[in-house]
Amino acid sequence: MVDLYEFSLGPYPRGFHVITDEVLSFLGHLPETAVLHVFIRHTSAGICINENYDTDVLDDFETFFSRLVPEYFQGMKHTVEGPDDMPAHIKAVFTGCSVTIPVSNHKLCLGTWQGIYLCEFRDNARERHIVATVIS
Amino acid sequence: MVDLYEFSLGPYPRGFHVITDEVLSFLGHLPETAVLHVFIRHTSAGICINENYDTDVLDDFETFFSRLVPEYFQGMKHTVEGPDDMPAHIKAVFTGCSVTIPVSNHKLCLGTWQGIYLCEFRDNARERHIVATVIS
Amino acid sequence: MVDLYEFSLGPYPRGFHVITDEVLSFLGHLPETAVLHVFIRHTSAGICINENYDTDVLDDFETFFSRLVPEYFQGMKHTVEGPDDMPAHIKAVFTGCSVTIPVSNHKLCLGTWQGIYLCEFRDNARERHIVATVIS
Repeated sequence: MVDLYEFSLGPYPRGFHVITDEVLSFLGHLPETAVLHVFIRHTSAGICINENYDTDVLDDFETFFSRLVPEYFQGMKHTVEGPDDMPAHIKAVFTGCSVTIPVSNHKLCLGTWQGIYLCEFRDNARERHIVATVIS
Repeated sequence: MVDLYEFSLGPYPRGFHVITDEVLSFLGHLPETAVLHVFIRHTSAGICINENYDTDVLDDFETFFSRLVPEYFQGMKHTVEGPDDMPAHIKAVFTGCSVTIPVSNHKLCLGTWQGIYLCEFRDNARERHIVATVIS
Repeated sequence: MVDLYEFSLGPYPRGFHVITDEVLSFLGHLPETAVLHVFIRHTSAGICINENYDTDVLDDFETFFSRLVPEYFQGMKHTVEGPDDMPAHIKAVFTGCSVTIPVSNHKLCLGTWQGIYLCEFRDNARERHIVATVIS
């Protein structure tokens, strides 16, 4: 069985944000055993999983990603939507646009330090549309 | 229920290619609610999701990826299959080898600007084998 | 139906390791048609799929990743767990923390040269906890 939930998050400022509890607030009671898939319907923001505790980690992700994929990188052609747009597309491929997480005993089977990230790569983004599916 | 489809795509030239419609042409009528998984059975090509409209984006991906992972990078040992092979492996890990997409109302629940990419990282690739599964 | 298996792997030394057979040894008989999801419950190690044959490839991955994300990169703030920790978080986002693989005819539908990698990014890691789910 596949249960599907659609909702919006943010707008969030550019950077990495832990959204685990916010995502869970939109879902019903989780099945005893299942798999949760969280998908972002955009190409300049990403969804991934990483450290949920030290906000320095979130800052370091933003620092590293923005240095790795600079605005107006050499040879960049797609500039019609602003200098932050094409780098945002590339960063979104690096993080991915979805995560898949096992559910056990009605809870997400995340490690102690794992959280779901929304990675906002645009300078002035609007709300981001999310589709979550629970497969059981 | 899991329905599985096997098919081949290409050969495509080196670069990023939008394959959403081509993938759908191999699948049956999609269920009302489901999840589609698209998997590439290769290690020097990738599958990801990004912008489906401006072909400059596809060119910029190729430009950026090929600069980030140059042929004969410092210390590279795996050269037996040519200088484009080991960089192709690394790029394929960055993009990933599969995508998972929710299905709602018998359609892929992609955002307006999202398309499935086949990322061909070899200079002279053959057809690429794909396995698509529909979980409902 | 979702069948869930929890087990530990390693400890492995820093680097990339092919774990396909080890993962399969923890699972029951696979269904005729299914999808396998393998998830690592950590934020400084990753799971991905790539070349399963030439160990030079594993070495080249370690070489490239460690040069791309150096210890004490410029601006790095999260240093409380050692200089290898924050780079490990970033590398783990690049590889991802899970893979999803189709199952056909009771076997993983991997390509000839594909294997599941455990990517150990810490210098002195302990065992890594894995959750595998079989969706059928």
